[in-house]
Amino acid sequence: MDFFEAMKRRYSHKEGFLPDPVPLGHLERIAEAGISAPSGGNAQSVRLVILPDRNALQPLCDISPTAGLRTAPAAIAVFTDSSTQGGEFNFEIEDYAAAMENMLLAAVALGYVSLWLDSPYYSAKEKEKEARELLGAPDIWRLRAVLPIGKPDGPGTRREKLPFDKRVFYRIYSG
Amino acid sequence: MDFFEAMKRRYSHKEGFLPDPVPLGHLERIAEAGISAPSGGNAQSVRLVILPDRNALQPLCDISPTAGLRTAPAAIAVFTDSSTQGGEFNFEIEDYAAAMENMLLAAVALGYVSLWLDSPYYSAKEKEKEARELLGAPDIWRLRAVLPIGKPDGPGTRREKLPFDKRVFYRIYSG
Repeated sequence: MDFFEAMKRRYSHKEGFLPDPVPLGHLERIAEAGISAPSGGNAQSVRLVILPDRNALQPLCDISPTAGLRTAPAAIAVFTDSSTQGGEFNFEIEDYAAAMENMLLAAVALGYVSLWLDSPYYSAKEKEKEARELLGAPDIWRLRAVLPIGKPDGPGTRREKLPFDKRVFYRIYSG
Repeated sequence: MDFFEAMKRRYSHKEGFLPDPVPLGHLERIAEAGISAPSGGNAQSVRLVILPDRNALQPLCDISPTAGLRTAPAAIAVFTDSSTQGGEFNFEIEDYAAAMENMLLAAVALGYVSLWLDSPYYSAKEKEKEARELLGAPDIWRLRAVLPIGKPDGPGTRREKLPFDKRVFYRIYSG
């Protein structure tokens, strides 16, 4: 799919998914997109765990049964490995966010919908730890987000965006 | 251009640019990609200032004459507006990083190369402030990065990436 078409079609799907499985080859292409994103100092902090079916997903869903995870047929858990960061600055958030956007677009390009699901791990440190341990991740990793992936069970709701001229300016800010 | 093709072609162009101008319509499509990225709580913190030629770019370059800015025919300055963040958490870094990735891909899809240039503003607060004031941005904004945009003056250097199986795992971490 054309890049600009994928960009336009992408939205945060907060509703349900159809049970149709996602072929492993598609999940791998989405993961490949994730690790193809740039990273601060090329440190490549992002690590991914593919959860290809409900058996793999359900225990994670039990920890945080948010809408996005309850019906998704597959997901990708997105970690950063803090041991990659040796310099003065830490780029784990930039790295994972760029990887997320690549994966969200890749999912759309392959005909799926997805969601940047960070809230249960962002706001509740004990849930992040529980989920991280469930997935066998080392202590030095952080679970940053989960991407549920699948076909939508309905049209989904697109949220309103500010107009172009409230966010983009020419030569100098002119708000 | 196909999404996966743009993803594969994207790299961090740290070398020089040809002087060929970038049509304003292309810069606007790249900016549109930036503001189309998702944002935490749909708060849309990202603000962009298009610098469409050397006259607009040179004063910014004078503050931080890094390689990426010295020859670029155009650029986009990427800010976040902190006044958009009212909740318990701050998503400005996630927001701008997702917008960056969208813009880097859009630039490639339109036949250009680009670079995620954050270092002069990340590491030197006084340079960030100087550049922000130069561009007329309010105090509550932060200059996060600049994207130089143009045609490359040579093939550019792609940096080595870890193999897939060092970063992507199935069902559970198995490193």
